[in-house]
Amino acid sequence: MTNGLVVALSGGIGGAKLALGLSRVLPPEEPPLIVANTGDDFEHLGLSISPDLDTLMYTLAGLDNQVFGWGRRDETWSFMETLSQLGGEDWFRLGDRDLAVHLERTRRLRDGQTLSAVTADFARRLGVAPRLLPMSDDPVRTRVLTDSGWIDFQEYFVHQQCRPVVRELAFEGAAAARAHPDFLGALADERLRAVVICPSNPFISVDPILAVPGVRAAFAACRAPIVAVSPIIGGKAVKGPTAKIMGEFGLDPSVSEVARHYGDLLDGLVIDHADASVADALGVRTAVAQTLMTTLADREALARGVLGFADGIGRT
Amino acid sequence: MTNGLVVALSGGIGGAKLALGLSRVLPPEEPPLIVANTGDDFEHLGLSISPDLDTLMYTLAGLDNQVFGWGRRDETWSFMETLSQLGGEDWFRLGDRDLAVHLERTRRLRDGQTLSAVTADFARRLGVAPRLLPMSDDPVRTRVLTDSGWIDFQEYFVHQQCRPVVRELAFEGAAAARAHPDFLGALADERLRAVVICPSNPFISVDPILAVPGVRAAFAACRAPIVAVSPIIGGKAVKGPTAKIMGEFGLDPSVSEVARHYGDLLDGLVIDHADASVADALGVRTAVAQTLMTTLADREALARGVLGFADGIGRT
Repeated sequence: MTNGLVVALSGGIGGAKLALGLSRVLPPEEPPLIVANTGDDFEHLGLSISPDLDTLMYTLAGLDNQVFGWGRRDETWSFMETLSQLGGEDWFRLGDRDLAVHLERTRRLRDGQTLSAVTADFARRLGVAPRLLPMSDDPVRTRVLTDSGWIDFQEYFVHQQCRPVVRELAFEGAAAARAHPDFLGALADERLRAVVICPSNPFISVDPILAVPGVRAAFAACRAPIVAVSPIIGGKAVKGPTAKIMGEFGLDPSVSEVARHYGDLLDGLVIDHADASVADALGVRTAVAQTLMTTLADREALARGVLGFADGIGRT
Repeated sequence: MTNGLVVALSGGIGGAKLALGLSRVLPPEEPPLIVANTGDDFEHLGLSISPDLDTLMYTLAGLDNQVFGWGRRDETWSFMETLSQLGGEDWFRLGDRDLAVHLERTRRLRDGQTLSAVTADFARRLGVAPRLLPMSDDPVRTRVLTDSGWIDFQEYFVHQQCRPVVRELAFEGAAAARAHPDFLGALADERLRAVVICPSNPFISVDPILAVPGVRAAFAACRAPIVAVSPIIGGKAVKGPTAKIMGEFGLDPSVSEVARHYGDLLDGLVIDHADASVADALGVRTAVAQTLMTTLADREALARGVLGFADGIGRT
């Protein structure tokens, strides 16, 4: 089958590239459902900030800042400049346009709206075609155990620039969180074509989604193929601390460890040409593709490759 | 005497002009204490906004936007533009730089700091020489009775652009508010030279200050002269709804009514040349001056005139 619903799980930047590719190659009448990690959401300066949701939203709306690789394009920085001058906390860079998203989201959440409702409305107003969904409307907060104790994820990721050695990760709130019903509904949908795990960090972007009760069971019950794209290429992560964290966990930063990490969850793994030689030893069906997405054409080509691979596996 | 402490009471724009004049003509070692109305403070988009304090702060720091007459100079509007796009409330215009003040103030107030402490720190960082003090650290909120019921002051002033007929004004919280101890302390100070009521709206900018318990008594006990500058010139207000409100209260928008409104509180009233003919009929000592402040020289000249007038009255 070459139609039906595609569900994509994604963290931030790398995942968003494939999510964009999927949204462009799928027919407009069957846009993908993009499920975002909210484990790296946090409260900062009194604002509710959802970095992965926003990276996805900006990327899918064509508003992403391609110079920085994060935040919005056509951004201005007057707020941040003044905040620094006033002695405010300025380690998390908030552009003036980006800030409007956080402030309005915070206001609506305080008003009692759900994160998914706010996200849907923002996405519609910014012209995002695919449906963008937080994994849960309940708060899940990734925490990082360092040699100085447990710290918040953004404290680790942005403030301390991933310098601390990661001993352990925890997803606070995950056990009590309810997966978004539309996420579970899509996984049970008869029309489900494929589940795509985007090339996001398995430990900090995908594991929080899998930690929400019911998600692993829904994956196990799901009749459509579940395929992941490895975020590790030739022993390195394209961006971010994936390889560093794997090393700190005593794991080889390799596609083999990515395959082992996801284990039975997967029906297939897409790896890069750089890793083609180990394809047969991964214990999972593999497809080899160019997984580094530099251009828009790369994103679309990988999306087509992933979908073709999933369609070839078919329902199980 | 020509030295000692000068205390100035001020609302927003008109008052801030004279406050700036005072701060420039007084010796740097004896800066004025500027006491700001906080009755038009409000909570908006989850932010604690103090319009009069901020107008004073920007004006005294030389950061005021002289094109708009409110807000900051060198302002950008990316936040507001995006907020509108997201369907947020955009009737109260918040520039990107201005926003940093509100957000950081809100964060610090939630942290348990007082409004006066936050104001003092911001003023220091922005290079404001005079001491800038809210009348109280406790919330006072001006409310406006219209034919459609009671509404918040900024709803009346900005959102409805002063269109509703004002039936009554109330200063919610004033009866329970404590005047800032440094304000009362200054009024009782042996070294007090003069109290200047700036040409702000008597009903909406000065009355909230006078409504705080202890302020009128401190004025009555105060041995230094208390002089006001009339915000009404030739039957008109320079800016804002002063004349309109006076008319709605059944009062002639005239210096006579300004004199009557302040009554015994004053030792002297400074009026404009346009009103010189009624000077003798006001029942209070008057000085005639150019009270319209267009240039910086005008602000300084009026400040000198007011201080000279007060010094001439002397302690009573």
